[in-house]
This record gives sequence, structure tokens and C-alpha cells, in this order.
Amino acid sequence: MTVMEKIEEVRDAKWFSNLTTIIILAYASVLGFKTLGEVETNYSMLLKLADYFVTIYFVFELSIKMVSEKKFINFFKNGWNVFDFVIVVVTLLPLEQSGFAAIARVLRVFRVLRLFTSRPELKAIIDMLIKAIPSIIDIVILMFIIFYIYAIVGNFYFSELPSGLWKDFLVSMLTLFRVLTFEDWTDVMYEAMDVYPWAWLYFVSFVIIAAFVFFNLFVAVIIGEMQKLQESDMKQEMHEDHLKIDLLLNEIKALREEVKELKKE
Amino acid sequence: MTVMEKIEEVRDAKWFSNLTTIIILAYASVLGFKTLGEVETNYSMLLKLADYFVTIYFVFELSIKMVSEKKFINFFKNGWNVFDFVIVVVTLLPLEQSGFAAIARVLRVFRVLRLFTSRPELKAIIDMLIKAIPSIIDIVILMFIIFYIYAIVGNFYFSELPSGLWKDFLVSMLTLFRVLTFEDWTDVMYEAMDVYPWAWLYFVSFVIIAAFVFFNLFVAVIIGEMQKLQESDMKQEMHEDHLKIDLLLNEIKALREEVKELKKE
Amino acid sequence: MTVMEKIEEVRDAKWFSNLTTIIILAYASVLGFKTLGEVETNYSMLLKLADYFVTIYFVFELSIKMVSEKKFINFFKNGWNVFDFVIVVVTLLPLEQSGFAAIARVLRVFRVLRLFTSRPELKAIIDMLIKAIPSIIDIVILMFIIFYIYAIVGNFYFSELPSGLWKDFLVSMLTLFRVLTFEDWTDVMYEAMDVYPWAWLYFVSFVIIAAFVFFNLFVAVIIGEMQKLQESDMKQEMHEDHLKIDLLLNEIKALREEVKELKKE
Amino acid sequence: MTVMEKIEEVRDAKWFSNLTTIIILAYASVLGFKTLGEVETNYSMLLKLADYFVTIYFVFELSIKMVSEKKFINFFKNGWNVFDFVIVVVTLLPLEQSGFAAIARVLRVFRVLRLFTSRPELKAIIDMLIKAIPSIIDIVILMFIIFYIYAIVGNFYFSELPSGLWKDFLVSMLTLFRVLTFEDWTDVMYEAMDVYPWAWLYFVSFVIIAAFVFFNLFVAVIIGEMQKLQESDMKQEMHEDHLKIDLLLNEIKALREEVKELKKE
Repeated sequence: MTVMEKIEEVRDAKWFSNLTTIIILAYASVLGFKTLGEVETNYSMLLKLADYFVTIYFVFELSIKMVSEKKFINFFKNGWNVFDFVIVVVTLLPLEQSGFAAIARVLRVFRVLRLFTSRPELKAIIDMLIKAIPSIIDIVILMFIIFYIYAIVGNFYFSELPSGLWKDFLVSMLTLFRVLTFEDWTDVMYEAMDVYPWAWLYFVSFVIIAAFVFFNLFVAVIIGEMQKLQESDMKQEMHEDHLKIDLLLNEIKALREEVKELKKE
Repeated sequence: MTVMEKIEEVRDAKWFSNLTTIIILAYASVLGFKTLGEVETNYSMLLKLADYFVTIYFVFELSIKMVSEKKFINFFKNGWNVFDFVIVVVTLLPLEQSGFAAIARVLRVFRVLRLFTSRPELKAIIDMLIKAIPSIIDIVILMFIIFYIYAIVGNFYFSELPSGLWKDFLVSMLTLFRVLTFEDWTDVMYEAMDVYPWAWLYFVSFVIIAAFVFFNLFVAVIIGEMQKLQESDMKQEMHEDHLKIDLLLNEIKALREEVKELKKE
Repeated sequence: MTVMEKIEEVRDAKWFSNLTTIIILAYASVLGFKTLGEVETNYSMLLKLADYFVTIYFVFELSIKMVSEKKFINFFKNGWNVFDFVIVVVTLLPLEQSGFAAIARVLRVFRVLRLFTSRPELKAIIDMLIKAIPSIIDIVILMFIIFYIYAIVGNFYFSELPSGLWKDFLVSMLTLFRVLTFEDWTDVMYEAMDVYPWAWLYFVSFVIIAAFVFFNLFVAVIIGEMQKLQESDMKQEMHEDHLKIDLLLNEIKALREEVKELKKE
Repeated sequence: MTVMEKIEEVRDAKWFSNLTTIIILAYASVLGFKTLGEVETNYSMLLKLADYFVTIYFVFELSIKMVSEKKFINFFKNGWNVFDFVIVVVTLLPLEQSGFAAIARVLRVFRVLRLFTSRPELKAIIDMLIKAIPSIIDIVILMFIIFYIYAIVGNFYFSELPSGLWKDFLVSMLTLFRVLTFEDWTDVMYEAMDVYPWAWLYFVSFVIIAAFVFFNLFVAVIIGEMQKLQESDMKQEMHEDHLKIDLLLNEIKALREEVKELKKE
């Protein structure tokens, strides 16, 4: 058994992926507890240590994964490897000493995202979520058009309202997003109705249209998934049966012809 | 290749529909940025220019679509063409000079709706949404009856409450719509309970009944779509198989009869 | 054609049910507009007239339905007839002259419910909604147990809070219903957390458990309906096919036996 | 009939489980009414009596269930029996006399949970809910990662905000849970935007990501259940048919060969 084979064995071992998971979780806990004010001073030493350890471990783990590939370039053909690589490299940058210490500290948190790569089930769910995006892309465009028109109209009429919720186009979009989540939307409406009594039409129509589109999006996604389910192997088998039954009929008819000929002899 | 064929080719070309999409999006951006206060003065010239350009482009595009039809009247047989035509004509009206400048500026926004016609996928979704309306029309009537009765009762008892949320029939309807979205509905309830301690019964029953009807509407729509899915080609094929198997049985029985006759000879 | 047959013909006529629908809608509009303060004085005469007319029309319509039955008792065997009868009788009671004028005015509104009986589609939806109740009855009991336990615990710990949201068992139930609709539930939580810092556990667990039960209720109802759909005629046909294919196999085997005997001869 | 058989008969009798249900409901009502302030003094005697009675009844009922098992240890092999046993034992502890009277009173409420064991339908629903947990466990982990990262980032930037909604890691998690339920989430956002104008990006992205994950979780659960439904007996039957049709074809081909041989003779 060569060194190469040993490295490959380690890379694919269950205990190695479990070890990575545990180290990330431990690191996440340290980061989480650090924010509790009272323990900060005592634990800042621990945090620094954990930080160094995790950095070294991540570089070590990544090296194993890289070395075990036959061709170096293959490593980057897997999207998840690129994801791991970017996280490790970004958190290696010596930003702490420079003026970007604050950014460095925030970036550190994204290391927790590596939990995805250490748990195959989560990888599968993320893949599924990404695959679900195209099926809703047109609804997103439709939503954007509805938001756009309502934002322009809202900004045109309500821009002078004292709350400043419609003061420019982007703020109007944000206000409409808030109305969509039903978050104190009547406060926004009543303020507009004080100046324009017809404003309820604007808000009620927006809520109904947006909710109706959402409702149908939901149903459409479920039906789409159902269709995929039905077009699976079961349907395939059924279609084969359909063709074979025709074949059967022809066979029997041919057989009958032959028996008839037998009779004539 | 005649001029007519050339026009038709342009009309159906992918680059022509893409060009229209890009022009609408660019125009939408100009309209959107215009509302950001700080850039208004600098960009008002740009806006005017964009406005003239889009008006001319839309007229030009519509002309191509009209001219390329063999019979002029066919153009108006397609609902989407009528939709385009109305938007272009309405935004052509010289309202800016008259006293309706404000309305003209709002109407301009509806040009963005032409994105629907330039993107076939969005046309399909809009068609789907319109087709989904009849399947919920009776639930809408049912909702209206529930709203109506609660609005009359609410207006009868709560019309004197200081908030004025029940001061007439239409305002009561609006208040009930608010309660349906769970938007600060307890504020409305607690105010009513101060005068009528039984008011919680009115609100809780409304919330439960309205939510129950909605819940069932949702399930009904999904089940309805599923039924359509099952009644598709797959079911058709299965039914054909069902009939053919009967045919097979009869064929084989006939064959057996003939073999029996053979034996007797 | 006897008088009896003529009455039956009128009862089943489409125009008769449409007339009833229009009269109810007109009456509903009069009731609705009456509540708009400014028109009340002018329209109170109209309202009285509409009231008399609708009362007479309802009695007339009900008489036709009653008379056209062969046996008088059959009329009451249909639930919807009983529903009509109760509404007409209750609104006939001379409560206006007595001290219950207010109740009489509210009861009048329930006449609009007769829209259900005049539109067959709505009858069907109501029947569907009633049929859907048993499938969720056990979830309702489960919800009640969750509410009950949380209400008792909440009332026990939080009854002294200044807002009075937990002052007795029934008020606690109402407060929990409010929390379930996410209506300002953090206000309730933060108030409790001021005294009991662990209170977030009470609220977050309640929200998660209640939402989880609801979520599963929803999925269960959809799956239940799907199962009914699959157990329909399609499945029936498939099962028949399954049995017939066995029959076919036996027939062919018998046939082969006979051909073999032929050969031996 | 031995004493043992009689005990078993009682244990399985419908009237015995109904009696238990009624006693628990009566006890629950007494507990509920006790909390209504005005009746407390009059009913405290009744409550004490009900308490003694229920304690004795529960011990009696449990004894019957224990005694009727052939092997004593079998009793504890059923999870629901263990559940009953724990509730009865815990409420038997003489905590009233000790310093834990308050805890004892709260524990008493959990006796109502025994409604689950007395109604088989509820047992089934609870079993279903518990079975549904594994299918969402990975989504829960995913949700946790999203919450974790947003909590760390939120706590890092917003910890100094006057509302104290981000003052430590756990409070940030609670605040994010609140944002997820759309409960006054804009108040939280507007406060953050006063200091960091880009904060809307943090909140809007969290709402969209969390809602998107939830939405897909929902669809995934429904589709998963559908798949189970399709893989049931119906699919089994169809697959058998598929194999039998192949068998049929082979039989007929063999038959044709034999007829051909007949002809040659």
C-alpha cells in the first residue's frame, strides 16, 4: 500500500469527515459563546487558540484532498471543493494585522458553512435547493414587475408623506416588501389614506395580486414535482406494457391465421 | 423575397424580441432612477429623450406587427396584441400639455407591462394565472358572503368605537380584510372588547372560519390540478390497455374454439 | 297540465333561482348602503319597503317549495330546506315592535345566507367544507390539549403581569390564540421575560409545536385527498386488468396443452 | 373465568377507556375553572377532592394495566405505558408538603396529557407526528446554520443598538426567530438601518433565504409522502403485471412454434 493509497483511504474515511464536523461544531460554539459579554475576557485566549488550530486543520484537510487527486486540476472541477478552497483561502488572508480586522472577524463565521461539505445529507439538500431555483425564476421576474410598477406609482403619489417610506424608488421597493410580509401594512395604508382616500385600493390590490401570484407559484411547484414523479420509472414501465400488449394482439392474430390454414389442409 | 416576407422575418426574429426587452428594461431603469431625489435635475433631460425614443420605438414595433398580418383585423384577434395596442395608444395621447400631466406620467409606467409580451415565458405564466381564476371564483363569492355578514354585524355593533374602524360598511370591510391578514387584529379586538366583552367571539370565529375556508381552497386547487394531471395521456393509455386486454381474451377464446374443432376432425 | 305540475316547473326553473339570487343581492346592497351614515335618513323608507318586499317574497318562495312536495314531511328531510325555513321564520318574528328591535335588525342580515341555497355551486362548496371537518377533528382535539396545557401553565406563572393577558384561564386561551397568529407575540413574550427570563422557552416552544402540528395537519389533509383520488375508478380498472392478465395466462396454457395433444395424435 | 381474565377484560373494555377520558376531562375543567379568580375560594375544596380522586383513580387504572400483563417487564416495553407511568409517579411525589409546592401544581397539569393514551386516534396522530420528525431533521440543521451565521453577523454589527435585541448570541437567535415570524421585523430593521444603511440587505436576504428554505421543505415533505403513496400496493400490482405480460409473450411465441411444427408434419 503506497502512501498515495493511504491518503486516499483517510480522505474517504467516515471518521475523518466526522472529525471535521466535530471540529467545526466546537469552533462554532467557541465563536458563539465569545459573544456573550461576560465571558469575553476570559475566553479571548481560547478563541485565539481555536482560531489557529482550525486554520491549521483546514489547510491540512484541504491538502489531503488536493494531494489525493491524480490530476491536480480535477480538484477544482467539483463545485464543493472550490467552495471549500475559497473559504479556507479567504480566512487565511492576514487581514487582522491590516485595517480590515473587523471584516476578518466576520469572514471567520463563514467557516461554519463548511458543515455543508462535511455532511453529505446537507450537500444533497443544498443541491436540491439550487436545482429548485430555475423553476421559480419566471415567477421572480413577474414579482419584480409587480413590485416595479407599484413602487413607481407609490413613489409618485406618496413620496411627500412624513414617514419617508416612499421617498425614493429603492425605499418604496423595501416598503412594498414589508407590505408583502403583512408587517404593519395598515400603518402604511392609513397614513396614505389620510392624504389620498383611494389609497386602500392601491394596497388591497397589491396584497391580493401578490398573494395570488405566490399562491399559484406554490401550487405550480408542487404540480411540477408531481409530474416529474409520474414521469419516472413507473410511467416508463407502463408505456412498455402498452406497446407489448399491441405486440401480443398481433402475435395472436398471426397464430389464428396459421391455425386457419391448418384447418384448410 | 418580398418586402412582406422580410417584415415577417424581422417580427419573428429572436433578436427583435430581445431588443424590445432590453429597451423596456433600460427605460424602466431610467424611470426608476429618476425618482431618486438627488439625480432628478440632472437626468430629467435624459428622461425626456428616453421617453421620445421609447414612444417612437413602440409605434415602429407595433407597425411591423400590424403590417405583417395578411388581414388587418387578424391583428386584434390576439388578446396580447390588443394589450400592446392599448398601452401604446394610451401613452401616445398628448396629456402632458393638457391638465392631466400627472396621470400621463403614471400611465408611462404601465409601458413596463410590455415586458410580458416580449418574453414568451411570462406570457405563459400570465395565461396560467388567468386560467386559474375560474377555479376559485366560487370561493371568492363565499369569502364575500362571510365578509358581508361580518361587516354588517361589525358595523352595527362597533360603529361608535373611537378608532372609526367600523364607521361605515366599506370601512368595516377594509377592517375585516386587515383582520384576515392578522395585521394588528388584536388591537381591533381589544378595543371592541372594552365595550362588548363578547367581542372575542366575533373576531376568533371570523379568523377561524376565514382561515378554514382558505385552507380548503388551497387543498381543493392542488387536488383539482392533480386530477387534471392524472386524466392526461397516461390515463388515456391505461384505458386503451384495459380495452385491449378484453380483446385479447376474446381472441384467445376464439382460437381455442378453432383448435377444438381441429381436434374433432 | 295540473296546477301541481306548473308549481313544480316554476320551482325547478332556472329563472326562478336567478330571480331569488338577484332579489337577495339587491336587498344586501340596500342593507350595505344603509350603513353609510350620509344616506341613512333618505333611504330608511326604501329600506322598510325592501324589508317588506323580501319578507313577502321569501314566504311566497318557501310556500312554492313546500306545496310542490308530494308529502309535506319530505320538505324537512333536506337540510338546506330546513336552513331556508329557519331563516324565514326567524326573520318573520315580530321582534321590531318588542324590545328586541336590535336583535331583529342583526338577524335580518342572515337572510343573505340564503344566497347559498340559490346558487348550487355554493351549496356544493359548503357541503365539501362540512365533509372536510371530520378529517381534522382529532387535530383540533390535539390543538386543544396543547392550548389547555400552555394556558394553565401561562396562567399559573404570568397571571400577575400588568397587561392582564393571563389573568384567568379563558383570557390565557385567547392570548395563546393571538400568539398562534404571530400577532405582536413578542410584546407578550418580552413582558413575561422581564419577570421570568426563561419565558422565551415557553413562547418559542409553543410557536414551534403549534406550527409543526399545523404543518403536518396540512400535509395529512392533502395526502388523504390524494389517496381518495388514487382509489378511484382508475385503480379499479387497473385491478381488473391485473386479474384478467392471470386469466389470459391460464387460457394460453390450456391452449398449449390442447395443441400438444393434437401433435400426439 | 379466572380473576386474571376478568381484569384483562376490564382493561380492554371500551367503557373503561371512556370512563378514563371523562374523568380526565372533568378534572381538566376543574383545573381550568379554578384559575378564574372569583371562583377560586369556593372551589379550592372541590379541587382538593378532585385531586385526591384522580390520584387514586390513576394508580388504580395503572395497577390494572400492570397486573394484566403476564410478565411484569412487558408493561414497560410499550412506550405509551412508560409515558403513563412517569406521569402518575411524578404527580404522586409528596411535593406539596415540601418547598416545591409550585412545581407540584404545574406538574398536575400534565395529567391532561393522559388524554392521548385514553383515545387511540390521538395515539395514532402523535405516532405520525413523531414519525415525521426524521424527514425534516436535515432541514432543521440547515435552518440552524442559517440562524447561526446571521446571529453571529447580527451580534457583531448590531450589539450596541439601544433596543438590546442583539446584545449576545442567544438573544440574537431569539431576535432572528422573531424576524422569521414576520413579527414587527421592520422595527428591528429600521433601528439597524439608522446606524448601518445597508442593514436592509441583511434582513431582506434573511427573510428571503429562510422563507425559500421553508417553502422547499414544505414541498419536499409533500412529494416525499406522495412517493410513499405511489410505492404502495398499486405499484406492486403494476410491476407484477409488467412481468406477466413478458411471460404471456413468451408463451404465445412457444405456442406458435408448436403450431408451425404441426403444419410441417
